[in-house]
Amino acid sequence: MKILVLHGPNLNLLGTREPDVYGTITLSDIDSAISRLATELGCSVAIVQSNSEGEIIDRIQSALGVCDGILINPGGYTHTSVAIRDALSAVSLPTVEVHLSNIHSRETFRSHSFIAPIAIGQICGFGMESYLLGLRALVSHLMKKKQKCQ
Amino acid sequence: MKILVLHGPNLNLLGTREPDVYGTITLSDIDSAISRLATELGCSVAIVQSNSEGEIIDRIQSALGVCDGILINPGGYTHTSVAIRDALSAVSLPTVEVHLSNIHSRETFRSHSFIAPIAIGQICGFGMESYLLGLRALVSHLMKKKQKCQ
Amino acid sequence: MKILVLHGPNLNLLGTREPDVYGTITLSDIDSAISRLATELGCSVAIVQSNSEGEIIDRIQSALGVCDGILINPGGYTHTSVAIRDALSAVSLPTVEVHLSNIHSRETFRSHSFIAPIAIGQICGFGMESYLLGLRALVSHLMKKKQKCQ
Amino acid sequence: MKILVLHGPNLNLLGTREPDVYGTITLSDIDSAISRLATELGCSVAIVQSNSEGEIIDRIQSALGVCDGILINPGGYTHTSVAIRDALSAVSLPTVEVHLSNIHSRETFRSHSFIAPIAIGQICGFGMESYLLGLRALVSHLMKKKQKCQ
Amino acid sequence: MKILVLHGPNLNLLGTREPDVYGTITLSDIDSAISRLATELGCSVAIVQSNSEGEIIDRIQSALGVCDGILINPGGYTHTSVAIRDALSAVSLPTVEVHLSNIHSRETFRSHSFIAPIAIGQICGFGMESYLLGLRALVSHLMKKKQKCQ
Amino acid sequence: MKILVLHGPNLNLLGTREPDVYGTITLSDIDSAISRLATELGCSVAIVQSNSEGEIIDRIQSALGVCDGILINPGGYTHTSVAIRDALSAVSLPTVEVHLSNIHSRETFRSHSFIAPIAIGQICGFGMESYLLGLRALVSHLMKKKQKCQ
Amino acid sequence: MKILVLHGPNLNLLGTREPDVYGTITLSDIDSAISRLATELGCSVAIVQSNSEGEIIDRIQSALGVCDGILINPGGYTHTSVAIRDALSAVSLPTVEVHLSNIHSRETFRSHSFIAPIAIGQICGFGMESYLLGLRALVSHLMKKKQKCQ
Amino acid sequence: MKILVLHGPNLNLLGTREPDVYGTITLSDIDSAISRLATELGCSVAIVQSNSEGEIIDRIQSALGVCDGILINPGGYTHTSVAIRDALSAVSLPTVEVHLSNIHSRETFRSHSFIAPIAIGQICGFGMESYLLGLRALVSHLMKKKQKCQ
Amino acid sequence: MKILVLHGPNLNLLGTREPDVYGTITLSDIDSAISRLATELGCSVAIVQSNSEGEIIDRIQSALGVCDGILINPGGYTHTSVAIRDALSAVSLPTVEVHLSNIHSRETFRSHSFIAPIAIGQICGFGMESYLLGLRALVSHLMKKKQKCQ
Amino acid sequence: MKILVLHGPNLNLLGTREPDVYGTITLSDIDSAISRLATELGCSVAIVQSNSEGEIIDRIQSALGVCDGILINPGGYTHTSVAIRDALSAVSLPTVEVHLSNIHSRETFRSHSFIAPIAIGQICGFGMESYLLGLRALVSHLMKKKQKCQ
Amino acid sequence: MKILVLHGPNLNLLGTREPDVYGTITLSDIDSAISRLATELGCSVAIVQSNSEGEIIDRIQSALGVCDGILINPGGYTHTSVAIRDALSAVSLPTVEVHLSNIHSRETFRSHSFIAPIAIGQICGFGMESYLLGLRALVSHLMKKKQKCQ
Amino acid sequence: MKILVLHGPNLNLLGTREPDVYGTITLSDIDSAISRLATELGCSVAIVQSNSEGEIIDRIQSALGVCDGILINPGGYTHTSVAIRDALSAVSLPTVEVHLSNIHSRETFRSHSFIAPIAIGQICGFGMESYLLGLRALVSHLMKKKQKCQ
Repeated sequence: MKILVLHGPNLNLLGTREPDVYGTITLSDIDSAISRLATELGCSVAIVQSNSEGEIIDRIQSALGVCDGILINPGGYTHTSVAIRDALSAVSLPTVEVHLSNIHSRETFRSHSFIAPIAIGQICGFGMESYLLGLRALVSHLMKKKQKCQ
Repeated sequence: MKILVLHGPNLNLLGTREPDVYGTITLSDIDSAISRLATELGCSVAIVQSNSEGEIIDRIQSALGVCDGILINPGGYTHTSVAIRDALSAVSLPTVEVHLSNIHSRETFRSHSFIAPIAIGQICGFGMESYLLGLRALVSHLMKKKQKCQ
Repeated sequence: MKILVLHGPNLNLLGTREPDVYGTITLSDIDSAISRLATELGCSVAIVQSNSEGEIIDRIQSALGVCDGILINPGGYTHTSVAIRDALSAVSLPTVEVHLSNIHSRETFRSHSFIAPIAIGQICGFGMESYLLGLRALVSHLMKKKQKCQ
Repeated sequence: MKILVLHGPNLNLLGTREPDVYGTITLSDIDSAISRLATELGCSVAIVQSNSEGEIIDRIQSALGVCDGILINPGGYTHTSVAIRDALSAVSLPTVEVHLSNIHSRETFRSHSFIAPIAIGQICGFGMESYLLGLRALVSHLMKKKQKCQ
Repeated sequence: MKILVLHGPNLNLLGTREPDVYGTITLSDIDSAISRLATELGCSVAIVQSNSEGEIIDRIQSALGVCDGILINPGGYTHTSVAIRDALSAVSLPTVEVHLSNIHSRETFRSHSFIAPIAIGQICGFGMESYLLGLRALVSHLMKKKQKCQ
Repeated sequence: MKILVLHGPNLNLLGTREPDVYGTITLSDIDSAISRLATELGCSVAIVQSNSEGEIIDRIQSALGVCDGILINPGGYTHTSVAIRDALSAVSLPTVEVHLSNIHSRETFRSHSFIAPIAIGQICGFGMESYLLGLRALVSHLMKKKQKCQ
Repeated sequence: MKILVLHGPNLNLLGTREPDVYGTITLSDIDSAISRLATELGCSVAIVQSNSEGEIIDRIQSALGVCDGILINPGGYTHTSVAIRDALSAVSLPTVEVHLSNIHSRETFRSHSFIAPIAIGQICGFGMESYLLGLRALVSHLMKKKQKCQ
Repeated sequence: MKILVLHGPNLNLLGTREPDVYGTITLSDIDSAISRLATELGCSVAIVQSNSEGEIIDRIQSALGVCDGILINPGGYTHTSVAIRDALSAVSLPTVEVHLSNIHSRETFRSHSFIAPIAIGQICGFGMESYLLGLRALVSHLMKKKQKCQ
Repeated sequence: MKILVLHGPNLNLLGTREPDVYGTITLSDIDSAISRLATELGCSVAIVQSNSEGEIIDRIQSALGVCDGILINPGGYTHTSVAIRDALSAVSLPTVEVHLSNIHSRETFRSHSFIAPIAIGQICGFGMESYLLGLRALVSHLMKKKQKCQ
Repeated sequence: MKILVLHGPNLNLLGTREPDVYGTITLSDIDSAISRLATELGCSVAIVQSNSEGEIIDRIQSALGVCDGILINPGGYTHTSVAIRDALSAVSLPTVEVHLSNIHSRETFRSHSFIAPIAIGQICGFGMESYLLGLRALVSHLMKKKQKCQ
Repeated sequence: MKILVLHGPNLNLLGTREPDVYGTITLSDIDSAISRLATELGCSVAIVQSNSEGEIIDRIQSALGVCDGILINPGGYTHTSVAIRDALSAVSLPTVEVHLSNIHSRETFRSHSFIAPIAIGQICGFGMESYLLGLRALVSHLMKKKQKCQ
Repeated sequence: MKILVLHGPNLNLLGTREPDVYGTITLSDIDSAISRLATELGCSVAIVQSNSEGEIIDRIQSALGVCDGILINPGGYTHTSVAIRDALSAVSLPTVEVHLSNIHSRETFRSHSFIAPIAIGQICGFGMESYLLGLRALVSHLMKKKQKCQ
């Protein structure tokens, strides 16, 4: 079982960025934790960060036939990208959307997601923990799907 | 560490209710799974279901000084209850909001939550798994808070 | 064939309440008329009034496996209760929504119903007659359903 | 007592039109049922169908001094015609609005009616039965009005 | 100089229709007054009333090359007819829009006119007088236009 | 019979101001035409222009017991002044609202008037002629009122 | 003269709840102050707190024929309850709405009240003082009403 | 294969109407071009123009069992007619919507079409060419449908 | 302790203005009552009425360093004046907003206040009593503030 | 005559993507068909696909002085990209917008296009055929333009 | 070259007003800085502050034929005054709008300006510097205009 | 002191693009003017143009620790990019937003900026001059900040 983990724009600055909102944890801290949990759950992960909407779409497309599911934090593109939504629909891979901060307690425009309606589910507000919960949710979903097919 | 788990209106019908949306799992299946995970995570849970907004508020209030956090699936009250939001603000206990279904892929009115802005975070779309992820998130949050205080 | 008749909040005050809008007929006048028509149509009715959203939900749930259909005047909850809508969806019993007054000729917020989209149909504006027409509609619907099954 | 029954646009196609929404009953089936019930209720009916907004207005106007009430299914004009509303206001005849389908469970624009605010009441969702219930409601309303005048 | 005077839907009922809003004057009273003023102002008028949007469009089109201007009370079509607006744009004849009642002190939907933006101006609220003022305004406009051309 | 004619802000610049919208006629040209027509109609006029909302309110108030009606072009205050509306309501004098330009064919915010709903009627789009038509409408209205009282 | 004082949801937590918004005064402090002022104003009070919308409606209904007026702080139900509004309309008792905090300087959804349009008036922002001012307003209103009747 | 070509209101004035928007081509020019292309594509066309919404509905209905598809330019009714939409749904014939002008670069209200959601597709902005492209699109669609059935 | 009492536009007409809304009490009746209560509460008042937004701002500014608080009925400017709001923010004096009528039971535009969010609180609906309650609220607020400073 | 054909994001996945919406035709099938028709129409085409908004802008810019027109399917960027709209405005090349699916019968957000208002026209709903019709429309437009210049 | 500098309402309080938003600089500090820069740029300035909308309009009007351009900070009138906008349009003098604070990071209603659409441009957020930049922008604009005329 | 100057999409076409809106000045003319003014103000500039949202984000991120402030014209991304806003928040560098044209006098969607609320201020409408004023504003801001730190 292989999972594509996609970090959207500005997540590479984590730890340097608005620490009162996101804390001091860096992206590589998160990636390590994701990898550890993946091992524990018996799956492998490919982790990518990009600031470019086009590149994120490219990566989603290249997961077709390679990965079993996608864990994505679309960052600022969450609220503006129909194209990323369409990419996820196109590849038809089970997707979990995660956010570090609670998007419902910030500016109004952040509470709408173009991605959520076509994802399995959405997790937000738990910092680094959001990724780990999302990975668990995705793996659990894939497991159940597998069992049904067998 | 003690957690109040609150199931909102109609969750007692689970398993009988719109199986294509919610599956065949019953509320007691969920409660057992929550209890098992609570034991694993080293905390205790008090689990309550109510169809009444007033009773849910009463339960939240009575958690004051007794519980360390609240895991709530406010059901239909998610979208209409300012009073439950105020109760959660009043007791100031860390709260995690969960939903069985993906509220962003259903009727438009379901994507707005009065609870989410005053919760730590929100998890939706993973069926029974949403509760288990929510419990993990809440316990993890309480652990970190404890460590900071020490 | 058994029908649950549910009167929502404030309908117990009927006859005392805003007589220029609702007339002088009391709730017990309505209940008698409903019972007479039920006998005529060859069905039995269980009639309940409650001011509490939670209790209305409880009553809807307890109709499961006991009643064949629900005739409901959700009163003020018509415009605000997602939880009652969810209860009706959960029990999956054919439901007819009725209103004494014409909700489309009063304040704007009264013309939207959370219940109507999941009901068979809606009848409003005919005073006590709304209930009697609603009962006829519901019984006729159940008859046709029965015939199809046989 | 004489009632004008008005079928709006496209109702002449009934039975051929979107059978999953409206069923296989034809307009002449409905007209027969209306006539039978009218006889039973001791009133006469004049039944007209038209696809033209202007002709519907003409018909409403010509009911002045001839009919005692109007039973109307304004079809697609329900949501767009101020002129039909004005015609009904102008003749000041008691009017009941009916719809075959449940207008609250279809496209959003169908839940608003320009006619309902100036009608006695509205009935929707019960197929052919909507007309019969509407006729009962109208006759009952006219009876009560008569009794008051005597 | 020839003016087409167009009365929209339901104006033929004038005098019988909601007397507290429109008074007891009939359409033929208005037509007589218009004709008298036309004579006084040295122009001729062709007066037409129709309940049909299509016929109103036909009449507007047939004014092309025959009339010098149009005085129109579009009645209920004021608020709903793009097609009448397009007809008036198409014939490019100077148009004055009039209303018997004050459309700004009635239901909200009556304050928007599809016609006004392509008319010279709008006059409302003065009963029969609205037509007479409108005729004066139109004739005065045509006079000035004529003078400029000479 | 005495009429207060009120010119709102910037009308003193008339003839110098956006000639493609308002033409080259000056305010004193308009005042002369109003005076001539007033004489013709057998009434007297008091004409005032002010750029100040407060002064316009003062003038409206001082008309109480002195004037029989008000002819007002509220200029830019049309769209923003509740206080002028309240002043007109307070003195309860019959009021006619006029505009030089067609407010419905300019910026969207110009089509809403706070004054119109409490005026007898509104006339717009006819340049100087709007005032003359408005004066006729007002005098005609006052005449009819007088006749009724006698 | 007897007044029903109704405290809505979460007011029982007062003093413990968000002290920076509501201060440290408890509900029993407020009740004592209300009782003292009632004595001073020569009226008696019955004071009730409830977290349940249904119970609040029950209490309002039971005031019929027993109390002369209602002083209500509907708490979170202010913004969501049509049913409480209907209960107050039904009993037709003079009602004053009060709030501890200034509802106009908090979240946008708090500035709309379903209760205010059918109350005599609304007082907000003065902490405990809001109740005392409300009681004065209500007693003064009832006094004037009494005097008119005599 | 037979196609009904429907021209909506005011299209008969083409060539005389707002030439800067629509050019100098007349409706009969368009009809000739349509006929030539129809011959080329091996189908026959019946071409109708009407200013009346009701007549357009009649024509659509009479295509049932006679024509294989409909090419329609609904003109001003595009934006206001639910009844024409319903007629097209009722006959269930493949429909292509065309417009001479680019409806997205004109007044805002022109960019919404009631017809488009139930058509195969929409073509706008290419003058007479819009019809020819629409005919090609419709014939091509019918061809493919035929091939599937064989 | 000195209080500036500000009456906004049209309040000078009180007693003559819409008596069914505001009663027959004059502004000087209100001023006398305010003065009497001020004496009773041990404070002095400076009372000003103005129809001019600019003058109201001037008066608010001149209270700086002279008055301890402001009691304001902004009249029609309540709903439209950002500049008065800014003046009150600029002088930073505790302000209480009052209204004679219940602004929530009148036209929709009256329920929004630009002043309320920067005031201590708002009182509306109690006629003259609104001012007296407002004065009590303001004095009570200033007392508590004083006590804290000592 | 040279045409730039631009395929927006995710169109490279065609044939693999949501086959019930877009069918099984691949992008290279479309490109072949476009090339064949281009040859037939006597023009050449340069065909590009990109998932990146920035690259699409670059390509549009590089068409300046090289191509005579642009045929674009902006995919998901249709609804979100002001920058692509600005690029098309900047190069001032005649542009035709096409879509495979009927954007008016899908999610509401898909019916708005930032591109359409600055294009010649829009074609949607005909699958691969949309491109071929678009190419015809563009070439026809360029032909006419050329003829005018000669 | 002469510039009218207009300070709107409450700017006279600068330095005393909300120092955390506007700082401690006084209006006379700003006026001195403006005068110094004016001398440096070789133009003269007339500086006026007023709290009255009417007076601001008077001042704008009196600049006609006297000044070459206007530098205005309309303060609270920015968001509410159509009349000031009309005055600026009427005099047709090049206008630059400036604000001390960043109007886009404050209350939502502050981000809309009635003035900006008819100004050359808008500058906000730089405190006193906003005026100096605005003066530079205006002088530079007038210079270029002059050069073109020569 | 080092400033990053960022030109958003399509600005590279300047001089060729819609000359009636933007004039004939090229981007290199602007860059030269910026460089000259930078030298005059004693700072250095790094100037970058990109059509890609992702690359703009990359550039903003790489300014961290290298530049003291950012001068940005986000072009079409102004109205659509949450991701660029987040990048600017993340690096926490003082930012000034500039636009060549007056965004408030163009299409409505251009008056909203996602960037402005997190910038120091915004300058628009002055062509090339907007950049120079923006550079002055930024340098002046940085100077004051420096002085405070010393």
